[in-house]
Amino acid sequence: MFRDVGLDKLIAKALEEDVGHGDVTTSAIFTGDEGGIARAVAKEDMVVAGIDVFKKVFLSLDPDIEFHTDCKDGAAAKKGTILAEISGAIKNILIAERVALNFFQRLCGIATLTQKYVEAVKGTRAKIIDTRKTTPCLRDLEKYAVRVGGGFNHRFGLDGGVLIKDNHISAAGGITSAVSGVRNTIPLTLKIEVEVKDLKEVEEALASGVDIIMFDNMKPEEMKKAVLLINGRAIVEASGNVTLERVRQIAETGVDYISVGALTHSSPAADISLNMTIV
Amino acid sequence: MFRDVGLDKLIAKALEEDVGHGDVTTSAIFTGDEGGIARAVAKEDMVVAGIDVFKKVFLSLDPDIEFHTDCKDGAAAKKGTILAEISGAIKNILIAERVALNFFQRLCGIATLTQKYVEAVKGTRAKIIDTRKTTPCLRDLEKYAVRVGGGFNHRFGLDGGVLIKDNHISAAGGITSAVSGVRNTIPLTLKIEVEVKDLKEVEEALASGVDIIMFDNMKPEEMKKAVLLINGRAIVEASGNVTLERVRQIAETGVDYISVGALTHSSPAADISLNMTIV
Amino acid sequence: MFRDVGLDKLIAKALEEDVGHGDVTTSAIFTGDEGGIARAVAKEDMVVAGIDVFKKVFLSLDPDIEFHTDCKDGAAAKKGTILAEISGAIKNILIAERVALNFFQRLCGIATLTQKYVEAVKGTRAKIIDTRKTTPCLRDLEKYAVRVGGGFNHRFGLDGGVLIKDNHISAAGGITSAVSGVRNTIPLTLKIEVEVKDLKEVEEALASGVDIIMFDNMKPEEMKKAVLLINGRAIVEASGNVTLERVRQIAETGVDYISVGALTHSSPAADISLNMTIV
Amino acid sequence: MFRDVGLDKLIAKALEEDVGHGDVTTSAIFTGDEGGIARAVAKEDMVVAGIDVFKKVFLSLDPDIEFHTDCKDGAAAKKGTILAEISGAIKNILIAERVALNFFQRLCGIATLTQKYVEAVKGTRAKIIDTRKTTPCLRDLEKYAVRVGGGFNHRFGLDGGVLIKDNHISAAGGITSAVSGVRNTIPLTLKIEVEVKDLKEVEEALASGVDIIMFDNMKPEEMKKAVLLINGRAIVEASGNVTLERVRQIAETGVDYISVGALTHSSPAADISLNMTIV
Amino acid sequence: MFRDVGLDKLIAKALEEDVGHGDVTTSAIFTGDEGGIARAVAKEDMVVAGIDVFKKVFLSLDPDIEFHTDCKDGAAAKKGTILAEISGAIKNILIAERVALNFFQRLCGIATLTQKYVEAVKGTRAKIIDTRKTTPCLRDLEKYAVRVGGGFNHRFGLDGGVLIKDNHISAAGGITSAVSGVRNTIPLTLKIEVEVKDLKEVEEALASGVDIIMFDNMKPEEMKKAVLLINGRAIVEASGNVTLERVRQIAETGVDYISVGALTHSSPAADISLNMTIV
Amino acid sequence: MFRDVGLDKLIAKALEEDVGHGDVTTSAIFTGDEGGIARAVAKEDMVVAGIDVFKKVFLSLDPDIEFHTDCKDGAAAKKGTILAEISGAIKNILIAERVALNFFQRLCGIATLTQKYVEAVKGTRAKIIDTRKTTPCLRDLEKYAVRVGGGFNHRFGLDGGVLIKDNHISAAGGITSAVSGVRNTIPLTLKIEVEVKDLKEVEEALASGVDIIMFDNMKPEEMKKAVLLINGRAIVEASGNVTLERVRQIAETGVDYISVGALTHSSPAADISLNMTIV
Repeated sequence: MFRDVGLDKLIAKALEEDVGHGDVTTSAIFTGDEGGIARAVAKEDMVVAGIDVFKKVFLSLDPDIEFHTDCKDGAAAKKGTILAEISGAIKNILIAERVALNFFQRLCGIATLTQKYVEAVKGTRAKIIDTRKTTPCLRDLEKYAVRVGGGFNHRFGLDGGVLIKDNHISAAGGITSAVSGVRNTIPLTLKIEVEVKDLKEVEEALASGVDIIMFDNMKPEEMKKAVLLINGRAIVEASGNVTLERVRQIAETGVDYISVGALTHSSPAADISLNMTIV
Repeated sequence: MFRDVGLDKLIAKALEEDVGHGDVTTSAIFTGDEGGIARAVAKEDMVVAGIDVFKKVFLSLDPDIEFHTDCKDGAAAKKGTILAEISGAIKNILIAERVALNFFQRLCGIATLTQKYVEAVKGTRAKIIDTRKTTPCLRDLEKYAVRVGGGFNHRFGLDGGVLIKDNHISAAGGITSAVSGVRNTIPLTLKIEVEVKDLKEVEEALASGVDIIMFDNMKPEEMKKAVLLINGRAIVEASGNVTLERVRQIAETGVDYISVGALTHSSPAADISLNMTIV
Repeated sequence: MFRDVGLDKLIAKALEEDVGHGDVTTSAIFTGDEGGIARAVAKEDMVVAGIDVFKKVFLSLDPDIEFHTDCKDGAAAKKGTILAEISGAIKNILIAERVALNFFQRLCGIATLTQKYVEAVKGTRAKIIDTRKTTPCLRDLEKYAVRVGGGFNHRFGLDGGVLIKDNHISAAGGITSAVSGVRNTIPLTLKIEVEVKDLKEVEEALASGVDIIMFDNMKPEEMKKAVLLINGRAIVEASGNVTLERVRQIAETGVDYISVGALTHSSPAADISLNMTIV
Repeated sequence: MFRDVGLDKLIAKALEEDVGHGDVTTSAIFTGDEGGIARAVAKEDMVVAGIDVFKKVFLSLDPDIEFHTDCKDGAAAKKGTILAEISGAIKNILIAERVALNFFQRLCGIATLTQKYVEAVKGTRAKIIDTRKTTPCLRDLEKYAVRVGGGFNHRFGLDGGVLIKDNHISAAGGITSAVSGVRNTIPLTLKIEVEVKDLKEVEEALASGVDIIMFDNMKPEEMKKAVLLINGRAIVEASGNVTLERVRQIAETGVDYISVGALTHSSPAADISLNMTIV
Repeated sequence: MFRDVGLDKLIAKALEEDVGHGDVTTSAIFTGDEGGIARAVAKEDMVVAGIDVFKKVFLSLDPDIEFHTDCKDGAAAKKGTILAEISGAIKNILIAERVALNFFQRLCGIATLTQKYVEAVKGTRAKIIDTRKTTPCLRDLEKYAVRVGGGFNHRFGLDGGVLIKDNHISAAGGITSAVSGVRNTIPLTLKIEVEVKDLKEVEEALASGVDIIMFDNMKPEEMKKAVLLINGRAIVEASGNVTLERVRQIAETGVDYISVGALTHSSPAADISLNMTIV
Repeated sequence: MFRDVGLDKLIAKALEEDVGHGDVTTSAIFTGDEGGIARAVAKEDMVVAGIDVFKKVFLSLDPDIEFHTDCKDGAAAKKGTILAEISGAIKNILIAERVALNFFQRLCGIATLTQKYVEAVKGTRAKIIDTRKTTPCLRDLEKYAVRVGGGFNHRFGLDGGVLIKDNHISAAGGITSAVSGVRNTIPLTLKIEVEVKDLKEVEEALASGVDIIMFDNMKPEEMKKAVLLINGRAIVEASGNVTLERVRQIAETGVDYISVGALTHSSPAADISLNMTIV
């Protein structure tokens, strides 16, 4: 469900960035006719994400390359698994290799980390969601990888949901007026979320009729009280420097969603390598 | 020294990605006339990198925003340091905030991690260098951050240096013929590097007159022997899943450069937040 | 609140389209130094919308042009009103004139038509909203003009809200399963709307817990019954070839929103002309 | 004959605008494998224009979609006519539907309105022509639709013909000097047209040897006199707020061309809908 | 009168092409604060063209650079003339230098060559015109340089004039039917030109009422006869491998225009160098 | 080995520039169904370069066009040789013709001129290399044509090699400090070249350990002495207004490379024409 529209351009940009005026090494050695097979191998356990993007980079450079995979996004691949087999002009496989891996390793990395958070809260009602702390120009891909890893998405961008923060509240003169001001201008189809920092603000938010309440850096015991107070009258999101260590404790407060910036801003790349055979 | 040419377009793309059809929250609450001050604060110790990019995002959206900083790229900022002060229309500061931070936190993260590697090899002759394992479309910025952190750059792209790998070698029928084939077509200004995996290949590489020899996943003791064998007749680079734990041992083999993919593909974002005051 | 991000590029495209290889007439007659004043005059009563876009076209071509206006978007301008005064190099004013007016007349036309619909439902609870039936590449501007005219916006695009139509329902095997399927993948911040065509479907939609119910081409008397049945448990939108003649009758059924495609796909341009004086 | 060059980019932009970060509804319900057939049906009588553009939107998103039509641009389609049948992945048909219709309805709308004007002047020598009052970024398509409707095109842009207006004339110090100034710089292949407002100016224009004389808001009886005076020595165009009511009277003055801004700036969209069947 | 609209983008592309990932030399040596003055000096006699483009490249990279010139486009500059003085950050002057000169030297080269042709036909009625044989993406600049050199422009592109060649004629079944076919679809503002190869075709062209007749590779004596035959009833253009040696002879046949492809496809660059002083 | 990545966009731009709003002539006469064959014929002796680019222009416009050639880049084509045969819709062949030839004639012209220089130095050790004096936006193609003609490439851009010129030297306070400053920041894979103007500077350059020494406008006898002095310790390049007349004398001084700006900035287009037959 990631955005296909626009992906071609992104890949073209990435190839231009890497190839520049030409791959001087490969072009000197290969005429273009030599065939080869490359196998993408998982060098550690991972959740696969972005196999179609991986494929598309090779095909963008050379539509005659053949790409075969038995993996689907979301699959758990053990260390040693062959993720895909790419065959065709070895020259073009080599030129595209690095860009293809740069996309794919990042997306698998995000899905893999997301799944760890999802596992950590298993059995609670909490769902793991992402943030807007994504890599510039790669947001749709990264949010897709979060979904692949079992997470959910917060808004896609500033136009895809209302999030009223402390600055909005103080500028508007309180939660109530902020919410009513917003309700008057936004598209019909967007929910309204308010960031709160204590129980008093929770009450004001509830009174204003918001759809979602975000606990901003609140302590677990306070979150628990707030969840009880809300009692299903709004969706509840916990936010603020969530780590793998702390996430279960937060989940057990009863919140509906826990947002984790690290999913996209600090996930290590998954280790994948391409082994080539010239045929 | 990062590429200014093209940066405006990259920032514009990133803003389009986040703002989309408009910031529905902020636009509903602020008319545009309200002034404010935002302070970017380091929430952990870090090496600053990308302060000009951070500034440029705000100014791209609103050229009347004022940006003040006492930090320079390369500075070591302690937790709590105010990295910059941004003042102007609070509405526009809020709209640009996330994109500006997404760039800045990534670059500071890379510089900070790079510096750790640099520190780890202090006292040896080894320099830390990056790879082409960068984020698609962000390479110039990321390689700049590596330099800011005290590292050096490997080639910018496939057109900025020759790197003859195993596939090139077997296709060409050996190191010697690969090197002579390449020498005949590449721009005058590029060096030739060959990847080797044992002492026999080191000798062949030396004989072919290459400029740089890369040890691919060789063991420290073997590297030591190879360095002695080369004896200054070529620049020496060590490569292959280098970690902070292993890097010193590798440095002590006497190599000139150690390349670390993790600098750019797995560095966690530096923790920076923006505190706003409406005036 | 229209999207500033991206507007510069849109205007540049529009100027390129019209100017092409150069304004052969104006460039032959004016050296570039001659000054002039142009007055934009309303040739009929209208609601002003897009005055900033109008201004921006001139300034895109020549940043030294001065643009003065006493009008604000949303103002009701009587026939004969001077909407803006543009002074500077007459050559550049002439080159930009047509493109500037093409944007401005369209936006004023939309706001003016929107206001007629808004007036027609005055005193009822119904609000007028737009659709995605906008001009390709001009959506943000057109949806802005709808707001200026007193209307509201439906979703900005396919990513800004869920609208489950008959095809989705039959593919999913009923409203209930369609809604639950969607709920599991969409961003947290989006509402779910379902299109219904009779009371039975209204009941199913209510049971599934949707946020918004859209009556698709239902008759007024049936809408009235459905509104009573829903009784505030969901937001209600009426849709389907709404005309100025029929809109009041629909509004009186008690629906919350009435969507009108004609606002953006069939509004006549407002009549505005530019009178120039060479000085 | 509309510009194919550039059309792909325009369609891509329009799809990006609508799809944004993804069609959240359709992607949640369809896996991508479900097939379907959609029939585009004329909901009112119309002149068909832009069937290839309509087709191209679907194929841009998914080259495997099949598009069948028995209609040709220029055909008169009665209410109820099936204009095209689109079959393939229902998911992609649904995603492309709105953008495809937004283009097609506009173009059919323009052709249909143009034909009404053409009918209205039937039997006279007058031809209906368009103006530069087109939608920003859609000019080539709109001018094509005018031709499809039986109209003719005035210049494509500021580089495609000379039109000397009152401001040019007063700046140049009269028609004679304006024309000779222009003749000295323009491409060999362009005609020169002058706008006149009375018989005296007609005479001056004739003396200067212009190719086309445009009557600017002149009264029918005066136009008749002017036509007699010109007597075939220049092509004659009538201009100025031409309506369907007034156009015949103007045509009967004997002018060669009548330009109508409303063809492109105020034509209502043709009513077309897409009926889908899942197979 | 060259196209300003679009020039910024062209310059940005050219700078990206040359600067790529950064000017590694200059960035290593200059911090950015060092000031300098560069003088552009004509190293041979030339006609100046494109001084504004030359300036714009420097200012695109650094708006604080100051650019002073006493030259105007069209001026005859003797060897040794200082064409412009550029002062500001020496670093940025050095980075922009090559791209700025690449544009400027080409445009001066074209204007200089054009003037030689213009001189060669002095005293005859013939004017020198260009063709569409221009450098891809630089047409507007190159056609501008032709005008600066005293030449005239043929059509800007395929949309800016009709030129019926032998293939069109044979496909249409003769000049007469080709001309009438074209007249029925082209914009009102374009002239019709036909290519002829003998007197018989000249007569057919005249009969069809074309505006311009082009002699395609006809011999001087035949051109003379054709000019007498035409006798002012159409504009006359001579075409076909015109050289500086042959052009006067052709001009003396009495033709109105002589088109010369070499003006833009084979003009040597004018020799200009930049002398820098660090201050 | 020219950059494929980016070529599609370049060709699209070039087609947009020429076709603009449409080929009014061809579209009026051909329906699109008429087939034809066009033969590209060399009208003078030449080295072929860019046959793939030539082909790609036709296929960009119409993927159904068939393109056949027996020529390879680098072939010596005698006057009269048929370089390629293009068959398909005559309409589209005609529309693409001029742009295709504009690219192809330029590239063949560059390869042809390069080969003359290469011939002139035959038997010496000198290789002919190009410069950065290329046409804006066409550098990769032009440098490719130089290689095809038997020449070599200097750096691709400012990021592809270090070239320390007089201004860098004086700013850095001498060759030694300039070189050491640069060595500290550049990518590992780039060589360092220094421009020198006398023997004293040659010695300083050698002492600093540079890879390449460029003689800037030195006299042949002085170059001879310098070559002896260097004695293989650095690569040697001669530069400065090299002409076909002077190049042999320079080559005989013993330099390794001679750079010639004229290859790309002043090569006349090769004469190629397209003969069409309608079938």
